[in-house]
Order: sequence, then structure tokens, then C-alpha cells
Amino acid sequence: MSLTWLEDVAWNKEGLIPAIAQEAHTGQVLMLAWMNREALETTVQSGHAVYWSRSRKRLWHKGEQSGHEQIVKAIHLDCDNDAVLLLVEQKGEIACHTGRHRCFFKRLEKENWASVEPVLKSPDSIYHNSDE
Amino acid sequence: MSLTWLEDVAWNKEGLIPAIAQEAHTGQVLMLAWMNREALETTVQSGHAVYWSRSRKRLWHKGEQSGHEQIVKAIHLDCDNDAVLLLVEQKGEIACHTGRHRCFFKRLEKENWASVEPVLKSPDSIYHNSDE
Repeated sequence: MSLTWLEDVAWNKEGLIPAIAQEAHTGQVLMLAWMNREALETTVQSGHAVYWSRSRKRLWHKGEQSGHEQIVKAIHLDCDNDAVLLLVEQKGEIACHTGRHRCFFKRLEKENWASVEPVLKSPDSIYHNSDE
Repeated sequence: MSLTWLEDVAWNKEGLIPAIAQEAHTGQVLMLAWMNREALETTVQSGHAVYWSRSRKRLWHKGEQSGHEQIVKAIHLDCDNDAVLLLVEQKGEIACHTGRHRCFFKRLEKENWASVEPVLKSPDSIYHNSDE
């Protein structure tokens, strides 16, 4: 069956689209990752965020190692069809591989990127043998 | 003078980085656009969001035609240095060229992208002779 909603997406020349994950109950922007067609379709089917890892060149079920999955509450598409916004609930309160709540923990302050959010859990205790 | 904070950014092979604009006082994600080095530097210097228009291949001072500028309150960088998050106040309450509050106005509902947010102002009345 042709999935029209997937055809509507303006995939870039690598077949990807940027995906913003926003925490549904706080509104915090947790991370930006990338999806290919299979990642978006799997996300919708499973209700869990699945991205495309550009470094590992494979589907990346968020939380597959850490348990820090993202339950997807809604998916929005923008006016140009070239960015998606996921509203998620973040398992374990940790979205970032550094052990912080979210990936956007650096803030520009006087010409420096200052880390302004705490590490909640050591990455060593999150991952047994690899990074996410 | 070398600007270390600009060197810290992991620009992609086109020299760009995705930039998410989030409304500071509501937490709503308004849009995703792109910045090159000059756009980010100009944004910081001016306090107004300046993006790189990939279609027009030039700097795009958001609101230059519509008046719907974005006042930048803070800029965050993510763990991999390859995405930025702007906290902004949106002039005129309209971020989207369709006349809606934000660009993410389509939501996936039963395999269709449904427009779920209203047009606040006709694009014809926003733009005199061009789109933004």
C-alpha cells in the first residue's frame, strides 16, 4: 500500500529529514536527530522514536542500549515538509548520551558555550559497552 | 580576531547547521531553519534571528519583509555541536509564511497530515511582492 503521508515528506538528497524531539509535558527541546523513511514509518508503527544514525548508518531505536526510550505522543510536519517535530515522553528523564536531561545543555555566554545543565547519571553507568 | 565559539560549531559539508526557533514565553517550537557561519555571527551581534536561505542562497534576516522578526533571548548548542536552539520572542505572533503562528502546523492523524492551527493573517497582507 502506498503511504501518502510518507510521500508528502520532502526528504533531502540523502533521503533524510531533521527530527526535533520536544518533551510533551515540559515543552523542553531535548534533541535533534535525523530520520529516513523507514525510521519515520517505524516510529509511527511502534509509537517509539526511531531515528537514522548517520554515523553508524543504521536505524537507531532511541534507548535501545540505555533504556531511555521516547514514547511518541504526536508528530508534526512543517510548512515546507522538510522538518518534523515529535512530542515525546522521555523514559528515565535522560535524552542525552552525556547523561544530561537533554542535548541542548550548552548556552552561549560571553563568546563561550557554557554547560548549564547537570549530568544526572554517569554515561558509564548508562552504557555497558558502547555509546548511543 | 578568531571567534572560538564559532569554530566550536560542527558545520556540515555545506557550511550549515540546523537552527530550531522556540518561543521563549510559550515553549512552542516555531520553525527549523538553517544558518551558516555569517548568519550565526550576525544573529549574535544583532540580537535578531538571521538565517541562511538555502533556496535564495543568501542571508535571510527573519522578518525583513513581513516585520515578523525574532528577538533572540538565548542560543543553545547540542552535545554534538551540530544543531542550535534559539529561544526567541516572535514579533507579530506569526513565524510562518502561511500566516500561522508557527511552521509546525500539520499533525499526523490517521495517515494524513492535518492542518491543526489557524491562519492568523493572510499571506497576501503580510507580503507585498514576494514570499519569505
